[in-house]
Amino acid sequence: MRKIFEEELQDLHVLFSEMGKMVNEAIYISVKGFVNHDKELAAEVIAHDVAINQREAEIEKRCFELIALHQPVTGNLRRIVTIMKACADLERMADHAVSIAKSTIRVKGNKRNSDIEAAIAEQSEKVKVMVEEVLAAYIKTDIEKAKEVALSDKLVDQDAEHIYGRAIEEMKLDPELVLGATDYIMVAGYLERIGDYVTNICEWIIYLGTGKIIELNTNNKFED
Amino acid sequence: MRKIFEEELQDLHVLFSEMGKMVNEAIYISVKGFVNHDKELAAEVIAHDVAINQREAEIEKRCFELIALHQPVTGNLRRIVTIMKACADLERMADHAVSIAKSTIRVKGNKRNSDIEAAIAEQSEKVKVMVEEVLAAYIKTDIEKAKEVALSDKLVDQDAEHIYGRAIEEMKLDPELVLGATDYIMVAGYLERIGDYVTNICEWIIYLGTGKIIELNTNNKFED
Repeated sequence: MRKIFEEELQDLHVLFSEMGKMVNEAIYISVKGFVNHDKELAAEVIAHDVAINQREAEIEKRCFELIALHQPVTGNLRRIVTIMKACADLERMADHAVSIAKSTIRVKGNKRNSDIEAAIAEQSEKVKVMVEEVLAAYIKTDIEKAKEVALSDKLVDQDAEHIYGRAIEEMKLDPELVLGATDYIMVAGYLERIGDYVTNICEWIIYLGTGKIIELNTNNKFED
Repeated sequence: MRKIFEEELQDLHVLFSEMGKMVNEAIYISVKGFVNHDKELAAEVIAHDVAINQREAEIEKRCFELIALHQPVTGNLRRIVTIMKACADLERMADHAVSIAKSTIRVKGNKRNSDIEAAIAEQSEKVKVMVEEVLAAYIKTDIEKAKEVALSDKLVDQDAEHIYGRAIEEMKLDPELVLGATDYIMVAGYLERIGDYVTNICEWIIYLGTGKIIELNTNNKFED
């Protein structure tokens, strides 16, 4: 029985890691589509989101089955709960990639600003590294790495703040930029939220390793 | 054993309903704070969010315990899963109330537009009715009501679209409005997302009643 539990948990880890890669890809392509004004890439992200949602449902279903079948307690229950929670965070991250893709479709044809777009590309690069590192930390239950990844979320927040300020500035100067720059603010906000979800996953890794729920989420500029 | 399961499930329903009321209150106060430029109300929403998060954690914990202890299958497992999922949706709705509260704090002192603020108040009124009705439908597993509530989400989406258009218009005409009107777009977007989460809960009610997962979420303007 114990052996089967471990095997099933191992399967769950594989499903989860694959889902992480799918989500990372979705984020990467959505931003690439946004800064390259590429509607095709955007459509790809939207279409692929179905598979990510299905994967979340599959992982959840297996988690419930594992709990009902093996009645795990303490440590083992924690391992299942962590996968369920982290996989819900991944799914939300993918939803934000979809929002970025929708921005790409909406914004196409409007006047744009290449400086701000470069800043968005840079912000997304940081997010990409965070996602990759949190997935690696998850596999090894690497608590120190998880803390480190969570710390780097501050830089993503700072980027969002910078982009917000720049977009407001440009909109005030040039009414034609209003439509496009509103989307810059939104996309920078989506990336900021993705960083927050990565931080959540960092918290789950720490919970997995220590059994303690701690709050790593550093407040962003919208905080009181 | 069966008796105790039913009793514990009943406790969960009470905890869930109370959480629903807390979240509804948070949304209501956050919008009231926003349209009345009332920073105190905004701070109240942010402070109270801790209690909502704790409530979600409490409900989740009890759900896992119930599953591990009673190993429910089919119908009973479905009842627990529904509470867990719907309570995660409630928590996300509360997060958006917090975002609205943060907008209130950020935006205070900027030039504003009372027409658009009236439109936001109207949109939030519709959201409030949706939240109240979905909670009532949940308690009675009222599938017809759930479908009806989900349909009304379209009106909330239309309001968001209208506010977006008006805000863009005004920003183009008056650079001084750029800062404030950007927040109008965001707040209307938060309310739209809250409506989406209500629609999710409608789907969970239908799942609870029928065992079928269906997609009620009508696409909003940001959809392809």
